[in-house]
Amino acid sequence: MSRVISQLSISLDGYVAGPNQSLENPIGEGGMRLHEWALATSTWRERHGQEGGEHSPDAEVADEVQRGIGAYIMGRRMFGGGDGPWDEQWLGWWGDDPPYHTPVFVLTHHGREPLKMNGGTTFHFVTDGIRAALDRAREAAGDLDVSIAGGASAVQQYLRAGLLDELYLHIVPVVLGGGERLLEDVGDPVLEPVKVVASPAVTHIRYRVGSRS
Amino acid sequence: MSRVISQLSISLDGYVAGPNQSLENPIGEGGMRLHEWALATSTWRERHGQEGGEHSPDAEVADEVQRGIGAYIMGRRMFGGGDGPWDEQWLGWWGDDPPYHTPVFVLTHHGREPLKMNGGTTFHFVTDGIRAALDRAREAAGDLDVSIAGGASAVQQYLRAGLLDELYLHIVPVVLGGGERLLEDVGDPVLEPVKVVASPAVTHIRYRVGSRS
Repeated sequence: MSRVISQLSISLDGYVAGPNQSLENPIGEGGMRLHEWALATSTWRERHGQEGGEHSPDAEVADEVQRGIGAYIMGRRMFGGGDGPWDEQWLGWWGDDPPYHTPVFVLTHHGREPLKMNGGTTFHFVTDGIRAALDRAREAAGDLDVSIAGGASAVQQYLRAGLLDELYLHIVPVVLGGGERLLEDVGDPVLEPVKVVASPAVTHIRYRVGSRS
Repeated sequence: MSRVISQLSISLDGYVAGPNQSLENPIGEGGMRLHEWALATSTWRERHGQEGGEHSPDAEVADEVQRGIGAYIMGRRMFGGGDGPWDEQWLGWWGDDPPYHTPVFVLTHHGREPLKMNGGTTFHFVTDGIRAALDRAREAAGDLDVSIAGGASAVQQYLRAGLLDELYLHIVPVVLGGGERLLEDVGDPVLEPVKVVASPAVTHIRYRVGSRS
């Protein structure tokens, strides 16, 4: 059965983006420090057409989290392009061939025609809420999983609604001191650590999300 | 060489005590959920004169963190008894035989004579700051380690001052949603995970604290 999962890199003080996020620096000050572990892996480099990189436990995790995903859901801000009605010139941050290779459902208040990119990625813009987006993503994913790609607000909404089955956190040993917190206003979810992978750079903890009933 | 260490149980959203702390409930609402993993261990039960408990990876960690400590330092609020000048009737939360069995240095603005308890615990009240307290604790500990017992504010002060060598976090898979955060206003310490122990109840990560120089 298809699961709804999310995987994020998070600072030890709980931030998934640094302070002072802006259109120019959407990840905030110091936010890239959360992703250095991934960029160093052979998995990431292969996926982006580069050679080298480390064959490490981190590389295995980076591979694990991209396998078996049939559709993604992301918030409007993660897709980018600013607030309000769409600038149709904006095609996302990722160039012609985004690293999703599946349908991607973007949560937004502003309708827009689907955007077919190279490599199998098509962005669909969903204006009728998180459940409608999930229904469409599940249908697109078939037996594969649906991944909530981010940002924090999208993950919070699915977690709070009890719709998330698994949360995979990559706990990076940095203190950002401010920014966008992940686990705010999410209620009191039942979280069960089911897998832990440790490396010098990061501690990966996969949590199964249960229900209190 | 004697190290300065600290070990705390922390919620996944970064709190070491729950919301609405009070004299009656110093650990805050839900705060005891952070310590259930420890209370379930054979280590804790033996230490408190009880039988049973689990012989688990958690029990090994609970044993590890209490070994080799020659002195503790704690904040005034952790010792308890309210703010302001001392009520000399207040002897701490722990009864006649506190679980420290070493000298304990209490950071306070209000002087008080040392308080000798059973079992080797003596509380000393230090009014001239965290460095003075550390000097006295180091002297008392000899070759053994000095542990910053808590609360969050005391740990923050030592971390911010670059005086902490090691931070051992027990990351409990609960979301408290509010309370006392540990990693606030601590600057940008270099943290290196050097040991990870996983169990179904908690993920223990031991960080070595470095310097940026």
